[in-house]
Amino acid sequence: MNSDRISESERVRREIRAGRISGTSRGLAPGFVQCNLAILPKAYAFDFLLYCERNSRACPVLEVTEPGDPVPRRLAPAADLRTDCARYAVFIDGLRQPDRTDIAELWRDDLVAFLIGSGITFDDALERAGVPTDRDRWVLRTTQPTEPAGPFRGDLIVTMRYLTPAQAITATQITARFPQNHGAPIHIGDPAAIGADLDEPLFGGPVPPLPDHLIPVFWACGVTPQSAAENAKLPLFIAHAPAHSFVTDLPADRLMV
Amino acid sequence: MNSDRISESERVRREIRAGRISGTSRGLAPGFVQCNLAILPKAYAFDFLLYCERNSRACPVLEVTEPGDPVPRRLAPAADLRTDCARYAVFIDGLRQPDRTDIAELWRDDLVAFLIGSGITFDDALERAGVPTDRDRWVLRTTQPTEPAGPFRGDLIVTMRYLTPAQAITATQITARFPQNHGAPIHIGDPAAIGADLDEPLFGGPVPPLPDHLIPVFWACGVTPQSAAENAKLPLFIAHAPAHSFVTDLPADRLMV
Repeated sequence: MNSDRISESERVRREIRAGRISGTSRGLAPGFVQCNLAILPKAYAFDFLLYCERNSRACPVLEVTEPGDPVPRRLAPAADLRTDCARYAVFIDGLRQPDRTDIAELWRDDLVAFLIGSGITFDDALERAGVPTDRDRWVLRTTQPTEPAGPFRGDLIVTMRYLTPAQAITATQITARFPQNHGAPIHIGDPAAIGADLDEPLFGGPVPPLPDHLIPVFWACGVTPQSAAENAKLPLFIAHAPAHSFVTDLPADRLMV
Repeated sequence: MNSDRISESERVRREIRAGRISGTSRGLAPGFVQCNLAILPKAYAFDFLLYCERNSRACPVLEVTEPGDPVPRRLAPAADLRTDCARYAVFIDGLRQPDRTDIAELWRDDLVAFLIGSGITFDDALERAGVPTDRDRWVLRTTQPTEPAGPFRGDLIVTMRYLTPAQAITATQITARFPQNHGAPIHIGDPAAIGADLDEPLFGGPVPPLPDHLIPVFWACGVTPQSAAENAKLPLFIAHAPAHSFVTDLPADRLMV
């Protein structure tokens, strides 16, 4: 294959596979859909797919692989899900193990991979519209329960951004056009109204006091299904490590409505 | 309950349950989401949900009930799926049985009901925008394969409308805002390009020659999953009878993006 002809998404995955990219996927291959990964045994696949369907704002499923097949044939047919994420989070009986840079040794014939649209996908569209995405952004637990399915349950996890009112309106318009990547905000304003935990953010560092003239805007976050799968204490569950999403070949604008 | 206070959707379902409405659901409770039904044994539920996910333009799943529970708790918590469709199509080993006006005798503890967004839902939005929906409309087989899952497979079935160019543009804009009810058209123009079978329409009567100045516009149709389930020749499969969709309590505009 002529390397001049490959897409930026494939180039990024090759760098990751070769170990030359090991950090966050944020900002990589802008304009291509990025996906959160959830990999689990077939025995739990129906309940997990149902959980995603029932909580589709947090868990927009874009592809489900056949059992044992590590290739996401619709979104990145040249990729291998065992090696093409920069960092994987592994859970055994609900307990987090050391992160891995590949999961080839853990792969089994009964594993099913779910590719779930990530909010990282619309960062590029937000930037193009003048909404900054690289700062004033946190991932927070809330006290809003999701709708359970089988063993999968837990509270909604959100991404919060501090935006100006004008940015909040623009960001609502833009993200609403990506219903398969979390879509429009689920809340604007008071964090306490959804029980957002500002004291212990999951990512993004300490949350500073709200600056004057800014407004908190909240989106359903793809960490939600990962958290629900942790709560289910499956014998084996593998996810992308936070902020290390899987880069697909699908142009984000193809998902736009 | 004070009958003055019930929604138009609940009033319609009560009339259906009492046998006082027996015809098509088209035009009933305008503004409320209508759903296609697919009811099948739990043993096939994962593959069917996966089929729907893989072909979500044709099969937008809005709710999946718990096994044995005939109540769609999210979309119509006062309804009973065994009685509240005006007409049911029943298939045993893939063979269509006589239609029924209720399925109480067929109900089993392992049946799971899928409520799938119907194109009838956006008829009201189209009418409000000046696009007529009650004529020049057919359901057609095509030669476009859907993506299979387990035993579920078959060609895409479409709804075709003859519209003026201006109506085609308006209808594309409006339906694109309902991605959970088939969304934007999948094709415009030459029926042969997607192998649409004009000779044997499934519904709508004979297809007349295309009038001057009109253009055929095609949407993925909710008959697709029903056809795939027929092809799977399940021991038991129950659907709404064509054009007799289930009326939910969800305002259609709530699904709009």
